[in-house]
Amino acid sequence: MNRIIFRKQFIEEVAAINLQKSVVVKLGGSIVTVKEKPYTPNRRAVTRLVEEIKRADVKPLIIIHGGGSFGHPFAKEYNIAGGYNNSGQLIGFSKTHQAMVALNRLIVSALIQRDIPAIAVQSSAFIVTKRGRILDFNDDLIQRMLDMGLTPVLYGDAVLDMEQGFSILSGDQLVATLAISFEARRIIICVDVDGLYTDDPKLNPDAKLIREISLDELKAFAGKIRKSIVTDVTGGMYGKIAELIPAVEKGIGVKIINGKRANRLYKALMNQNVKGTEIRP
Amino acid sequence: MNRIIFRKQFIEEVAAINLQKSVVVKLGGSIVTVKEKPYTPNRRAVTRLVEEIKRADVKPLIIIHGGGSFGHPFAKEYNIAGGYNNSGQLIGFSKTHQAMVALNRLIVSALIQRDIPAIAVQSSAFIVTKRGRILDFNDDLIQRMLDMGLTPVLYGDAVLDMEQGFSILSGDQLVATLAISFEARRIIICVDVDGLYTDDPKLNPDAKLIREISLDELKAFAGKIRKSIVTDVTGGMYGKIAELIPAVEKGIGVKIINGKRANRLYKALMNQNVKGTEIRP
Repeated sequence: MNRIIFRKQFIEEVAAINLQKSVVVKLGGSIVTVKEKPYTPNRRAVTRLVEEIKRADVKPLIIIHGGGSFGHPFAKEYNIAGGYNNSGQLIGFSKTHQAMVALNRLIVSALIQRDIPAIAVQSSAFIVTKRGRILDFNDDLIQRMLDMGLTPVLYGDAVLDMEQGFSILSGDQLVATLAISFEARRIIICVDVDGLYTDDPKLNPDAKLIREISLDELKAFAGKIRKSIVTDVTGGMYGKIAELIPAVEKGIGVKIINGKRANRLYKALMNQNVKGTEIRP
Repeated sequence: MNRIIFRKQFIEEVAAINLQKSVVVKLGGSIVTVKEKPYTPNRRAVTRLVEEIKRADVKPLIIIHGGGSFGHPFAKEYNIAGGYNNSGQLIGFSKTHQAMVALNRLIVSALIQRDIPAIAVQSSAFIVTKRGRILDFNDDLIQRMLDMGLTPVLYGDAVLDMEQGFSILSGDQLVATLAISFEARRIIICVDVDGLYTDDPKLNPDAKLIREISLDELKAFAGKIRKSIVTDVTGGMYGKIAELIPAVEKGIGVKIINGKRANRLYKALMNQNVKGTEIRP
């Protein structure tokens, strides 16, 4: 698909939007779902986050969400991330994607209800991975959506993989790839803790929140976490950090905030001072 | 995206499937929804059709469904088919797609429940039109799904259009395009009448069912209908016929059957004698 130039009338109408680079917001699976209960959305959190997005009214905006208790159970049961091994896994691939469609539908509907022209974009309909890494990615369609004033909503998904048949594409890998592709203004990551800590805050009460961190410090920190990491199927905080490094290297700033606390996403979108971890490029 | 060759293990495992060309089945919007009631699925029909698909067990299979009372109300209210005119239509674009996601989800879930590894494929995530006609279309992803043994389920959708901003892609256009692209074995179209009639069977009780029709007769017939046609926003039977002609020209046979009658889809899938209209290439 060639990059297609929109007719002049669209270009003019959306010029004001186009002058701005996109903001990429990630809504973590642990925020939009109840992590402990399979296939249970956190409707209250979704409604609040959508309200904050509506109030901030930042454009252009790309929203990406994780799978939480929707994506993970089937993906794990059928070992989708491990790739194709036998035809019995195919129904698991179907179920994993279908669970993500259910969660995505809920989030997009909440956005539409607040009059945000959100448009679901199925990752697995246009992205193929190679051993779990995005191989090929045509950004024309999403660019065109942004140009028109639509708000694309993507999600981590079960995708086809050219080496292993299929794989799991994480929302975090998607965030970094899209942010780089669209030269994003900023990335905002909503997780279920206040940001990056010196240690796991859920296990160690002495863990301290890191308010600001440079790219070099981040790389060192990522290395440190990697060494001490226990089993973490979802990639956890290290996975998020590691995935974001390429975007930060391209000069894109990242703010990690607690999506469970009211108004933090709003403040981050408004570029106001807000508790969290700022990753300086 | 380049056409990617699957690793040998997949090729071998799916060789038996690959020897066969695909069958393309269209489930009309008037069958899978209650046409008169907005956003009302016909769950009983969906369950029965899925059961017939399961029983026939034809592979590889591509399923495409229309919008019926899900897709049409918002598309009409916001004049999506007419293209972008003002930013107030954007939310209508969102709503139209979202309604199609809801209907698609229902159909895919019914297939998964019968252990068919169905996979929703969002048309608007990889197809762009030009004045409502498919401009560009990468078939690699769907080919790969078929190779693996997955059953892709596509649908008519609100899509981006390079000339007019956005448009409506009909399920019928999708049927012909995919059938040609994958050199389909056969096309089966499920509508809410027994097939093609000499006149509108819903208005004229003397209308006679055409059991068989050649490509030349079909073209003449399409011209005749075109001349006498009254307003029909959905394209109606003429729209279906006109869209199918390019596929028939490529040598692909079409069977039009009544999806409301039990066992007709099953028989058509099994290539058994069944009431309907056969279009000979």
